[in-house]
Amino acid sequence: MHRKAHCGLLSVVHSGAIEVLITLLDSIQDPKDLKQLTESQLVTLAQEIRDFLVSSISRTGGHFGANMGVVELTLALHRVFDSPRDKILWDVGHQGYVHKILTGRKDMFPTLRKLGGLAGFLKRSESPHDAFGAGHSSTSISAAVGMAVARDLRRENHHVIAVIGDGALTGGMALEAMNHAGDLGLDLIVVLNDNEMSISNNVGAVSKYLTRLRTDPSYAKAKADIDHILRQLSGVGAKVTKVLDRAKDAARHMLLPITPFEGFGFKYIGPIDGHDLPQLISVFERAKDIRGPVLIHTLTQKGKGYPQAESSEDKWHAWPSAVKGNQPPSYTNVFAATVAEMARRDERIVVVTPAMLSGSGLTKFQKEFPTRTFDVGIAEQHAGTFCAGLAAAGKRPIFAVYSTFLQRAYDQTIHDICIQNLPVLLAVDRAGIVGPDGETHQGVFDVAYLRAVPNMAVMMPKDENELRHMLYTASQHDGPAAVRYPRADGLGVALDEPLQALPWGKSEVLREGADLTIIALGSMVNPAMKAAQTLAADYQIESTVVNLRFVKPLDEELIVQLGKTGRPILTVEEAALAGGAGSAVAELLLDHGLVLPIRRKGVPDTFVEHGGRDEVLHRLGLDAEGIVQDALQLLGHKGKSTHILDKVGT
Amino acid sequence: MHRKAHCGLLSVVHSGAIEVLITLLDSIQDPKDLKQLTESQLVTLAQEIRDFLVSSISRTGGHFGANMGVVELTLALHRVFDSPRDKILWDVGHQGYVHKILTGRKDMFPTLRKLGGLAGFLKRSESPHDAFGAGHSSTSISAAVGMAVARDLRRENHHVIAVIGDGALTGGMALEAMNHAGDLGLDLIVVLNDNEMSISNNVGAVSKYLTRLRTDPSYAKAKADIDHILRQLSGVGAKVTKVLDRAKDAARHMLLPITPFEGFGFKYIGPIDGHDLPQLISVFERAKDIRGPVLIHTLTQKGKGYPQAESSEDKWHAWPSAVKGNQPPSYTNVFAATVAEMARRDERIVVVTPAMLSGSGLTKFQKEFPTRTFDVGIAEQHAGTFCAGLAAAGKRPIFAVYSTFLQRAYDQTIHDICIQNLPVLLAVDRAGIVGPDGETHQGVFDVAYLRAVPNMAVMMPKDENELRHMLYTASQHDGPAAVRYPRADGLGVALDEPLQALPWGKSEVLREGADLTIIALGSMVNPAMKAAQTLAADYQIESTVVNLRFVKPLDEELIVQLGKTGRPILTVEEAALAGGAGSAVAELLLDHGLVLPIRRKGVPDTFVEHGGRDEVLHRLGLDAEGIVQDALQLLGHKGKSTHILDKVGT
Repeated sequence: MHRKAHCGLLSVVHSGAIEVLITLLDSIQDPKDLKQLTESQLVTLAQEIRDFLVSSISRTGGHFGANMGVVELTLALHRVFDSPRDKILWDVGHQGYVHKILTGRKDMFPTLRKLGGLAGFLKRSESPHDAFGAGHSSTSISAAVGMAVARDLRRENHHVIAVIGDGALTGGMALEAMNHAGDLGLDLIVVLNDNEMSISNNVGAVSKYLTRLRTDPSYAKAKADIDHILRQLSGVGAKVTKVLDRAKDAARHMLLPITPFEGFGFKYIGPIDGHDLPQLISVFERAKDIRGPVLIHTLTQKGKGYPQAESSEDKWHAWPSAVKGNQPPSYTNVFAATVAEMARRDERIVVVTPAMLSGSGLTKFQKEFPTRTFDVGIAEQHAGTFCAGLAAAGKRPIFAVYSTFLQRAYDQTIHDICIQNLPVLLAVDRAGIVGPDGETHQGVFDVAYLRAVPNMAVMMPKDENELRHMLYTASQHDGPAAVRYPRADGLGVALDEPLQALPWGKSEVLREGADLTIIALGSMVNPAMKAAQTLAADYQIESTVVNLRFVKPLDEELIVQLGKTGRPILTVEEAALAGGAGSAVAELLLDHGLVLPIRRKGVPDTFVEHGGRDEVLHRLGLDAEGIVQDALQLLGHKGKSTHILDKVGT
Repeated sequence: MHRKAHCGLLSVVHSGAIEVLITLLDSIQDPKDLKQLTESQLVTLAQEIRDFLVSSISRTGGHFGANMGVVELTLALHRVFDSPRDKILWDVGHQGYVHKILTGRKDMFPTLRKLGGLAGFLKRSESPHDAFGAGHSSTSISAAVGMAVARDLRRENHHVIAVIGDGALTGGMALEAMNHAGDLGLDLIVVLNDNEMSISNNVGAVSKYLTRLRTDPSYAKAKADIDHILRQLSGVGAKVTKVLDRAKDAARHMLLPITPFEGFGFKYIGPIDGHDLPQLISVFERAKDIRGPVLIHTLTQKGKGYPQAESSEDKWHAWPSAVKGNQPPSYTNVFAATVAEMARRDERIVVVTPAMLSGSGLTKFQKEFPTRTFDVGIAEQHAGTFCAGLAAAGKRPIFAVYSTFLQRAYDQTIHDICIQNLPVLLAVDRAGIVGPDGETHQGVFDVAYLRAVPNMAVMMPKDENELRHMLYTASQHDGPAAVRYPRADGLGVALDEPLQALPWGKSEVLREGADLTIIALGSMVNPAMKAAQTLAADYQIESTVVNLRFVKPLDEELIVQLGKTGRPILTVEEAALAGGAGSAVAELLLDHGLVLPIRRKGVPDTFVEHGGRDEVLHRLGLDAEGIVQDALQLLGHKGKSTHILDKVGT
């Protein structure tokens, strides 16, 4: 087979009797293959990559718009730089598909974000070209500073390039990193991929700056202008000499911070068209020779080349893998509707989210309550303390955040919310296994890290109806409370009216049986009930099933009473086992001197990779089948035959 | 008694036969009392406050320099604003002593930072004038934004003022908050207390900006200059009209970001002399009428009025409460010496600290290894991922951080360090009870929040010698490891040579006895040994004492073996009980189906207030005496008589 490239999408090559479609793209196995192509071939390749993305992602699902927007940017980076010797770090990583295609992973795209398949983000273990893993926002500059420092300490000579989106720049750690990089004067290239649209709309002064740079050509050219002006003024004559000197002096001082990047000690180049391949290549080539940190501001269009995506907003951020039929509402949507319901009745309620407005289902809420909705941008730390400030001033803020991103506001949760015992409701979405987003986004640590903090209540509902009442319960509580719920559809139960407060710190006994107690948290209650049915039907094992509801405060009375029966306890939760809800139950029983067999099911001590949520849960044994198996093991039951235990109390 | 004020420090008033020394300061019970004073009386009062601070803090210890520096600033704020109606938020809070003196707490200063006494930071529960609690850095603007938003939603009309230091401005969350405040256009006053010196030296571009603003008068006046220039140029004639238009255009664009604060959407006033009371009062009065966010840049001198403090560096940050005699080295100093020892042998070792260089004992290290020491400023998030980047590039970074501040880098620890299993050594200083700094600074959550994270090893040494070998062990480990150690002096044990790796994941049995197993972590090993001696001598109870060393990975073999004896286990740790080391031991035993009494000692589920470390530990029962009591209770021992247990295996 030979490669035949022209402007069309596909070329047809006759190879004996078999007709094979060969594309330029098929010939790229490694970034160095790009160095052989002409500029026009690169343009062709860009189109082929777009076609590939459309056909591939429409089948598998995945982040679409972001990747369509960085086709030329990625091609230019790999054309100019020499990965993996040069380190290219992609912030967030969801715009890394083109990079993956160009680094030998194209054929894995049918497995994208599936169990055992290609990751949706970047992973060092997946390719030497993934210089640094990604998933959360705003980390790339910090990591790049580390790599550039290590390079300089070893007196090596390669480039370090961080590619970061405009939304990620509002994250405090990106600013901390620029501050440090500027201070060190490192040779470091930051490529700002400015697509005018992070996941939600951008927020704040940084965003306004970027808008100015984008929209106002005279602003971007001000530096050149001032030089020109000063040159022209020189001809005016002695009359203005003194004035001129002062003007020069003022200009010198004012030139420094013409962009915030220069304020941070970066040289600024831009804005440049992020879809103009020759320009990108030329600018990156130039950047190689610049000493010190440089920021290249590229303007890209999310979804570029796919008109529907270009014109839409953040629904194109990620492409769902399947269109849903007449399914129950998601927990996210039930959350949003409930918050709106509560907000109508209680004007103290306000909603704060760090760039998760749409992801948290709050777009409608914002329309109804525009003055009570605060999307602070990617700024979790600020969001946490902003909530504390609101609560200290009498508001009832709801902090809508994913479990994995709440990790960024942990100190603020402790220091500003919990120490002061302020009534902030943490609405912890995507708690548990998130599915295709994988390790970086699993929401499994929140139970352990939240319940360690005094004053914090931690709850999880068994279904979408309970979520409503639980949110209401938390909103009535005069202190911090976290309600966690999974990235999943509800169970299809009826949503009963009106909202009512659940008994504080009380669990719910759903089923009584004398052989075994299953204490299940939230999403595991339904599987536990199914397991109890199987245990009863197939093994004549009768289980008590408890819907824990509160990891903290625990229902001490009930749990101690159950412990006193001496009956083995199986705990089940969609959270990390180390320090999780099962440990909380065990701690309580041990503290009461109750000594009995306790088996804890949950997420083991390993980072859980991507895959469908149900598949992953099954693999972890976190479903009815897994619970049955654990129950049998706990009871010392060997097979599927008869029930071997003495039935205590029957 | 009547008040008699003049320029002297003290005035003598005859009240009958008793001679009483009355000062102006004594007459101030509430900030509103300041409104009656003349400017010259305020100047007198400032001197009296300084004298009070010197005499009081030299006796009790506490943050000295910061408070000497904000005397006029605080007086001016309380003179102009109307606290508690107006909300004054002090970042960090360690510069809040003058505020406390002026808000009715002067008489409590002899109890400063002592058990049951006045807190060293701000606390909402201590005074209505403490609008928001503080302790950690960079939170005040976020909280102020929350309070200002709440005010506006309620259509109230009061001022919100955040007072923040120059060092705290490098913290990402302060920048996130400014970005948000600028975006909202809130009426909000930020007073930048720029003392040219945070705890360590300031870092980065923000700091350089401030230096320019401070040192270069033409820079600060550039705005006025450009107007003046444009006005003068207008007279030059038609020849330059076109040029002039362009100059104006350029100037307009360039005026915007003359300071980074203006870039964030703040109006900027300054720099002004933070010790010039009349000027401060006049500027604050003006700021009341400014719409939108305003930043007032004040220049203050740390330790002002106390020459020794003015000229010194960060040793004056806090004044220790007692000078130490010939005591053992602190854990901090042993850490620093060990790291230097390791760095001499392993050039991959570099040290990263977020503004804790001196606090971490690393000043000498920096002198010896200036290119391998990175103080990134108050920027914990960046520090964490910077370490990950260094490690990904082959370095062996040591992240020197206090337990309480590591909370700020929790997500980076999970997402960038642990998911990628990178060899970053977290040197977690101030782990456990920190003493006088109180709730905000207790280092009690790290065991729970770190051990929940896969790949992370967690250790604590029993003495300063073991710290050395433990650090070395962690540095040899090919993945993340945290070594936590207390804010305390060592035990005075010999420091043996050379550094050697401890067996990975293995505990140490220090004593064997058949009645009870005490598993102690780090700082609790020595008290546990003492307790074991008491139990043997006074109660004929023989204890096995285990130095746990590794909370993670646990010594499964040993613990299971101990569990199999059926002998009760008492765990002891200087960390939060919920999810702590005791829970880890209990989890392991339960997972092995071992059912036995386990009692866990540690820090209960409450925020622990300030006081001497030993006093606080005693109150928590975390000393030999407390361990004896718990052991007796665990064994069902009633009194001081004979030993009631069957001795298993003796």
